[in-house]
Amino acid sequence: MPKISNKGLSMPESPIRKLVPFSEAAKSRGINVIHLNIGQPDIKTPQVAIDAIKNNTVSILSYSKTEGSDTFRKKLADYYSKHQISIEADDILVTTGASEGLSFVIGSIADDGDELIIPEPFYANYNSFSTAFGAKVVPIVSNIDNGFALPSIAEFEKAITPKTKGILICNPNNPTGYLYSKEEIQQLAALVKKHDLFFIVDEVYREFVYDGKQHYSVLQEPHIDENAIVIDSVSKRYSMCGARIGFIITRNKVLRSIILKFMQARLSPPSYAQIASEAALETPQSYFDDVISAYVARRNVLIEGLNGIPGVKVINPQGAFYCIVALPVKDSDKFAQWLLEDYSLNNETVMVAPAAGFYATEGLGKNQIRIAYVLEEKVLKRAIHILSEALKQYSLNENTAKRILKKI
Amino acid sequence: MPKISNKGLSMPESPIRKLVPFSEAAKSRGINVIHLNIGQPDIKTPQVAIDAIKNNTVSILSYSKTEGSDTFRKKLADYYSKHQISIEADDILVTTGASEGLSFVIGSIADDGDELIIPEPFYANYNSFSTAFGAKVVPIVSNIDNGFALPSIAEFEKAITPKTKGILICNPNNPTGYLYSKEEIQQLAALVKKHDLFFIVDEVYREFVYDGKQHYSVLQEPHIDENAIVIDSVSKRYSMCGARIGFIITRNKVLRSIILKFMQARLSPPSYAQIASEAALETPQSYFDDVISAYVARRNVLIEGLNGIPGVKVINPQGAFYCIVALPVKDSDKFAQWLLEDYSLNNETVMVAPAAGFYATEGLGKNQIRIAYVLEEKVLKRAIHILSEALKQYSLNENTAKRILKKI
Repeated sequence: MPKISNKGLSMPESPIRKLVPFSEAAKSRGINVIHLNIGQPDIKTPQVAIDAIKNNTVSILSYSKTEGSDTFRKKLADYYSKHQISIEADDILVTTGASEGLSFVIGSIADDGDELIIPEPFYANYNSFSTAFGAKVVPIVSNIDNGFALPSIAEFEKAITPKTKGILICNPNNPTGYLYSKEEIQQLAALVKKHDLFFIVDEVYREFVYDGKQHYSVLQEPHIDENAIVIDSVSKRYSMCGARIGFIITRNKVLRSIILKFMQARLSPPSYAQIASEAALETPQSYFDDVISAYVARRNVLIEGLNGIPGVKVINPQGAFYCIVALPVKDSDKFAQWLLEDYSLNNETVMVAPAAGFYATEGLGKNQIRIAYVLEEKVLKRAIHILSEALKQYSLNENTAKRILKKI
Repeated sequence: MPKISNKGLSMPESPIRKLVPFSEAAKSRGINVIHLNIGQPDIKTPQVAIDAIKNNTVSILSYSKTEGSDTFRKKLADYYSKHQISIEADDILVTTGASEGLSFVIGSIADDGDELIIPEPFYANYNSFSTAFGAKVVPIVSNIDNGFALPSIAEFEKAITPKTKGILICNPNNPTGYLYSKEEIQQLAALVKKHDLFFIVDEVYREFVYDGKQHYSVLQEPHIDENAIVIDSVSKRYSMCGARIGFIITRNKVLRSIILKFMQARLSPPSYAQIASEAALETPQSYFDDVISAYVARRNVLIEGLNGIPGVKVINPQGAFYCIVALPVKDSDKFAQWLLEDYSLNNETVMVAPAAGFYATEGLGKNQIRIAYVLEEKVLKRAIHILSEALKQYSLNENTAKRILKKI
């Protein structure tokens, strides 16, 4: 057959994809699989967005403007100004999800072999978008023992080469739940300014911030208008992941004109989803208050539960709805498969995301998993209990296996 | 500021984008601009699709399956089997428009510097998708004097190098309206088989075929399952360009597994649009009969009118809803701008797409324009009259200018 491209061959697979057949097999054996592995919230989409679609008056579903509808971008600018971020509608480019936004940004700044510095663990698809456009991810390790805080600026500076095009962070962070402080953002801002790099911040979880903490956007930082690029999305904020509406925000006009060429080629973002997303901006504050309360309660249940399991280590996340959990196992990949293939408690088991897929450095995160706390408290409690019992069993099995191996 | 990527700099601009400010200025002067330049049909979206959206029961707008919803793909397979194309639901990958489909196909088969052979003139964005993924377009000229038929196979064969990854055609063709015959498809099929290349056919206009002709899909051709890739879309077929739903269809499993990795990174195609698109498959045949009749009537009005203008050359298109028109002008770019900036008849003018943007070879198509006949007959008649009168005036101006230049 004709040859596949090298970049096609090296595109990473989804870290959980290989577990899906085991999950499906478990379900077909009648086992209830609790999904701790995916970030699909069970929160209802705001009624105002649902209603806008049901009451739409479209008779010809035509292309929208390439950069997104003007009224939508105007209202988005208003949304940010309410959040102490002063931007114009023209600074916003509407994309088909944050995913497309990141792809077009990487395509606009990186050629084959160019480098992006990203603290790891990071959202696995950053690697995919980079690979698709020939860019290379240069990871800087952030450590669970340090609460996944920003690694020292010296380490970033050491990683900068003539090929470095930018630094990419996610704030608050998927998968660690870490919220970068204003000081950390300012340190990175000074660094990108010094080395004339782009500073891309994925802020899709910007409103999921807990315990009275404040989110500091890179767009609030002065003097880096040419460097700063924010990626945002309606997916998590309004629990409308299926809309596929995101944004690129940058005050850098030249960069916008380049990104616009990538956008023109794909014509326009989806029209129905823009109607829903524009309406979603009218969501009352009470919706968010309820959602944040729900996530805090879920997080508290999860972290307390996990801390009660011997040998488990987890950091209390300050934002987003994920955490990285270190387990008393050697290989969380094998453990995740075993949970689906060989274990159940009262006919239930859990599916987790092995964390190795969130690291670019081979061998890191082998004993870690990522958990998304997007399920109801009572389900999370059952899931923690299952995990706890499963770990006991798994440890027994491992010891038995060791004893057998010794005898052989 | 930080540096833009080379591929970002070399991404082509939309061929009509630079005319947009002139069109907007004309409108602000109170002039009615008839848009012959864009392929946005004025045909209503089928009621069944509109109704499905209005009656949807979504309460959490969640991610769909990465490769598109199972029921949708199953119904799509049924659609193709009604059109003598035997494929399975698994052979279909649902993309965010044909644009995303083409991008992912090119990314999956081409690395930096790899080549795609495309007969020119071609849909301008083929060049953009190729540039974004580092691929190079190698054009083969198809000629208006030959009715834009497939260039000889010898010319294709001459263009094949070790870097060639595939041949890409659009059938029926945008911008020429040419419908490739079964024999032409078979000649190319034999060629890709012989040289082990991919054969990508953009069939988004497959149902817009006139005068009793039959469309022959590359998927009907036996023995090239590993080579053949079809790109399709609901955009034009159901006049729902704003849905952004397309498909990649290939029986090549290995290729599908690679494309799926690009798809996983962007999570899923838009959910609302899939609901509308699945419902659109129930559109009654009478809708298409009416649409085809309307396009044939429009085409007839257009071609007859254009043939009545001295010095104009046009081929009667057998499919899609575009034609390439050779004008008695030196530079259609300047003429198109002049139409918007300096000309009007009864307070109206026309906007056309200069054809040079549809050619990869510098200097070709300079006297040509592309016209989309997606407007009502009475509007098309006025547009032809305006074009005819404008050409007289433009020719007078040119001659006057020449006389003045001679005197200087």
